[in-house]
Amino acid sequence: MASDQNGSIAPEYQNTPILDGIDSPRDLKRLNVEELKALAQEIRNKIIATAAANGGHLAPHLGVVDLTIALHYVFETETDMLVWDVGHQCYAHKLLTGRRDQLPNIRKKGGPSGYPKRSESLYDVFGVGHSSTSISAALGMAVARSLTEQDGRAIAVIGDGALTAGMAFEALSHAGHLNKDLIVILNDNNMSISPNVGALSAYLNKIITGGLYSRARGDMQTFMERMLPQQLTKAAERLEHSVKGFLLPGQMFEALGLRYLGPLDGHDMDTLVDCLSNLKRGHGPVFLHVVTKKGKGYSYAEDDPLTYHGVQAFDIETGKFQASTGATVPTFTNVFADALIEAAKKDSRVVAITAAMPTGTGLNKFEKEFPDRCFDVGICEQHAVTFGAGLATQGLKPVCAIYSTFLQRGYDQLIHDVCLQNLPVVFAIDRAGAVGEDSPTQQGAFDLSFLRLVPGIKVCAPRDDMDLAAMVHWALAESGPSAIRYARSKAPTIGAKDGRDILHGEILREGTDAVLLAIGPVIATCLAVAESLARDGYSICVADARWIKPLDGALLDKLRGTPLITVEENTLPGGFGAGVIEYYADHGGLDDLRIRRLGFPDRYIDHATREEQLTEIGLDFDSIAAAVRELVGQRIPQSVS
Amino acid sequence: MASDQNGSIAPEYQNTPILDGIDSPRDLKRLNVEELKALAQEIRNKIIATAAANGGHLAPHLGVVDLTIALHYVFETETDMLVWDVGHQCYAHKLLTGRRDQLPNIRKKGGPSGYPKRSESLYDVFGVGHSSTSISAALGMAVARSLTEQDGRAIAVIGDGALTAGMAFEALSHAGHLNKDLIVILNDNNMSISPNVGALSAYLNKIITGGLYSRARGDMQTFMERMLPQQLTKAAERLEHSVKGFLLPGQMFEALGLRYLGPLDGHDMDTLVDCLSNLKRGHGPVFLHVVTKKGKGYSYAEDDPLTYHGVQAFDIETGKFQASTGATVPTFTNVFADALIEAAKKDSRVVAITAAMPTGTGLNKFEKEFPDRCFDVGICEQHAVTFGAGLATQGLKPVCAIYSTFLQRGYDQLIHDVCLQNLPVVFAIDRAGAVGEDSPTQQGAFDLSFLRLVPGIKVCAPRDDMDLAAMVHWALAESGPSAIRYARSKAPTIGAKDGRDILHGEILREGTDAVLLAIGPVIATCLAVAESLARDGYSICVADARWIKPLDGALLDKLRGTPLITVEENTLPGGFGAGVIEYYADHGGLDDLRIRRLGFPDRYIDHATREEQLTEIGLDFDSIAAAVRELVGQRIPQSVS
Repeated sequence: MASDQNGSIAPEYQNTPILDGIDSPRDLKRLNVEELKALAQEIRNKIIATAAANGGHLAPHLGVVDLTIALHYVFETETDMLVWDVGHQCYAHKLLTGRRDQLPNIRKKGGPSGYPKRSESLYDVFGVGHSSTSISAALGMAVARSLTEQDGRAIAVIGDGALTAGMAFEALSHAGHLNKDLIVILNDNNMSISPNVGALSAYLNKIITGGLYSRARGDMQTFMERMLPQQLTKAAERLEHSVKGFLLPGQMFEALGLRYLGPLDGHDMDTLVDCLSNLKRGHGPVFLHVVTKKGKGYSYAEDDPLTYHGVQAFDIETGKFQASTGATVPTFTNVFADALIEAAKKDSRVVAITAAMPTGTGLNKFEKEFPDRCFDVGICEQHAVTFGAGLATQGLKPVCAIYSTFLQRGYDQLIHDVCLQNLPVVFAIDRAGAVGEDSPTQQGAFDLSFLRLVPGIKVCAPRDDMDLAAMVHWALAESGPSAIRYARSKAPTIGAKDGRDILHGEILREGTDAVLLAIGPVIATCLAVAESLARDGYSICVADARWIKPLDGALLDKLRGTPLITVEENTLPGGFGAGVIEYYADHGGLDDLRIRRLGFPDRYIDHATREEQLTEIGLDFDSIAAAVRELVGQRIPQSVS
Repeated sequence: MASDQNGSIAPEYQNTPILDGIDSPRDLKRLNVEELKALAQEIRNKIIATAAANGGHLAPHLGVVDLTIALHYVFETETDMLVWDVGHQCYAHKLLTGRRDQLPNIRKKGGPSGYPKRSESLYDVFGVGHSSTSISAALGMAVARSLTEQDGRAIAVIGDGALTAGMAFEALSHAGHLNKDLIVILNDNNMSISPNVGALSAYLNKIITGGLYSRARGDMQTFMERMLPQQLTKAAERLEHSVKGFLLPGQMFEALGLRYLGPLDGHDMDTLVDCLSNLKRGHGPVFLHVVTKKGKGYSYAEDDPLTYHGVQAFDIETGKFQASTGATVPTFTNVFADALIEAAKKDSRVVAITAAMPTGTGLNKFEKEFPDRCFDVGICEQHAVTFGAGLATQGLKPVCAIYSTFLQRGYDQLIHDVCLQNLPVVFAIDRAGAVGEDSPTQQGAFDLSFLRLVPGIKVCAPRDDMDLAAMVHWALAESGPSAIRYARSKAPTIGAKDGRDILHGEILREGTDAVLLAIGPVIATCLAVAESLARDGYSICVADARWIKPLDGALLDKLRGTPLITVEENTLPGGFGAGVIEYYADHGGLDDLRIRRLGFPDRYIDHATREEQLTEIGLDFDSIAAAVRELVGQRIPQSVS
């Protein structure tokens, strides 16, 4: 066994003599190409061993090891600007740029981020997490260097999945127009997280398999060589000149004004170094097509890059994941998927949309049952939402399943195409709240605030599994837009006090000293706090607001006069608690309102475990209990029964 | 003169015998193609005469008259679904679909919208206003019809400007992948509102001028005809087959999986009818490239489509606009442009970005002075923002000038690329608040709410010209992100009471009965209200909050205890007034807070004049005065001095 249950790493994966001498990319320069190849193997071993011990992203990092080494070898990455798209392929980059010894702590609280981050290193020139920003950012850098007459080449490395986003197309078109020195490197592994979709992907495949290209070139060659008499030369030359642009692959990028080069084997170090060295001497916008294999160098990941995209700890020799301990509680994601499948069985109008996240959103299960009614549109949140609006105009019931943080990409479409037209699109918002080890870029901290301001949408949040299932069915029966937001967590079963009615808020525990008025699964914590504090003489009411828009006014009227603590996994400005205060301001009750709001503070929350993050933002048991004590003051403990 | 100052329309432009018989597209079917041509002239006359009398969009409507007629003639637009992109080309469509007599009231309160609107007509199958949504929506419709096995063809008509947006690319790629019956018609006039930019535009031009295409085809033909001996036939056939796909224009769209047809003369009715009739019989996704002339049929508009894109009333014969009456007060847009130019003269790091709105944002003036430092990126708000972030990483000071409603398109980029990285990008947010005759799609009603929730950004709003100029200079000196939002209106000069300090809020008038705490130019109205109410015995304080994020706590502390009316041209949920309440909830002062919030209600506000809209939402003089009276109660009138 190469790793054991304690996460210690087998020696053969720890022996990295070349890497140990690389403290910065400058140290690479003294190596020859053969040594670079050996270094690539060392880096792969280190990445595999670290993932085996700690879990985390694996396959995408392995695919770009050779390319990363070649880039840092050829370019001067202290002054040249290397922008990684999405960033979940940056481990090799981090290993080569002074963060070698911190890799075991990556994605842990206080350790390096799993993504490039400007505050972490001068080599991380642009922070990422969301997809398809790299070309825009690199183009901005290229233009700035040109305007200020500073040296330095801007290089964007973007995956073929990220290239499907419209934003990347916008940037390419602008780059072709501006004609500055910019190198766009397509890291083409035919995958985003899941296998890639869309016509662009098919187009790239066609280039790689070389169908038309090779045949046409071969035919032309044969034709010219065998058939052409001397007197045809002139006409043929003119013909060749005319069609040359069309016979090369990558004309789509040429049409946008970039010079296309490739496709290149992204694991052939000699070729990579040669080609990049040539590019370094050239000028103008260039599009270099590099073909890589996701998971390269670890057979299990090569064979199943989807499973090994992001992993929990595993055994290196067998590729087997450590058995999870404890009872299996379904996640909100699973509950959502099951409820949607159930609804779709009864109603053929139910269809589902994902923007390249079929597994993360649970729609992969839905797709298996209803392949014709599930649409993976690629990393295209804007299109996903408006496509849903179009489906809804024709009487279908589209469910747009999307992470909270990515819904920011479809915000205008949500307002302009769905809500303004009152179309019945259901937004199933996953990863709402603290998201754990992913970077602050991925936090689902804002959706309640940015949805609450949109006229016409109804927004609710389930506290547990039964709520979520019921809300999915409710939303599908609505005649207008709706949103259900839920956390990246297991879905507890909390139960109901007087029967479950998801159309309204609900008092789960009576109490007179204060009310914990909460939404989402944090209600479980609130109940525990109330129960614990009862032993100290506190009488704490716990209420599930359930609804953010519209708020349940009857519930709020009932609670009027009791000190209130609102609890939400969402930012405080304009959020749920803010809405509660606005309600009392508008409907009376401010004069005797004592309120404290718990939620995300008005700053960005770094990566850590979800539990650590909840503690940091004050949504853990101790913080909520302390907030109650502070608001209510001292109480007389009950005698222990 | 064809129109006079009273807006009456000359008879030769009112004589529309064919159009008068068209109550629905069904009535078109009995016409022959020659009659369609005559109808096109009548429709042009009607559009020109209406614009001459009332103002409004002109040039874009004229360009698509022939195409619109042909579409309604060939297709069954009661069941076929005609989706207009952006929608400012829909007058001919409205004239043919039962709204002929309402044209003079278009864009007026209670009249038809200037854009397609679902609630207005069954022929308006998708509401628009923002650009580049049509392909997504039409694709959704096509998929829905296919799934439900209903007839009806989905047709998206999109301009070449709108095609630059990434969202359109996302939809095309998905359409090519799905392979459903979808017709995308490119209305190519080489303009968005301003002349079009970007590599895509250059690509389309290349197709039209036919450079490569014609030469290549010509060469091939000559070569084949003159040179080819019998024995070469077989090889040549294979060659032809291989290269055929590459020799056709529009390969970019072919590469995405759509069949490309065109370019077609969009003013040749015979060709249009023929081609559309063929398309009607075909299947699969098709991209039809139609070339039109913006302003077609009105020489002044053909010669200067930018000036005649949207017009005030004008004289038909001379094309001259009616002289504006009254003193010239500069708009906020002009004040912004002048301040930016002044700052840019002193600091070479200042650069500006617009997403296809150089004129609307005032950046056309900036571009004249600093052509190398002004970037029109096309209708690409996502790219515009992240491109700005890239510029900022290299020490430049980018100003992203963008309408409030379009910033919704760059929201994720504002959060993820700018604010999370604390990059000094300045957002100059024009058209914030009520926008007048444009449809609810364009209202700038949400920015204060959706910006206030973003950690790290500073947000302010000028009450007048001097504030705005000072804020532009302030923002450019910031080391992090900032936003300045201002209205689509003239910029008053309001003056200051104790010297102007834009870093803080400001009490402009003392008073003890209540405070009008406002932001933006509505402060002028508040001052007038306070002065008027003083004569009725009211002592009303008027304070300019100036800052939305962070709020000026010192000012709010000073106002504590006095009844408060917040006034904002922004939606109430999560807005400025909400922030004020949150402040008191967090810092004490709720117990004696009497507050009323004025602003956009939580619904969409239809087109009307800006003044009518302000009245509708309660931000006019009378409404604000009434709100004060209601909050304060009766006061004893002062004796009239």
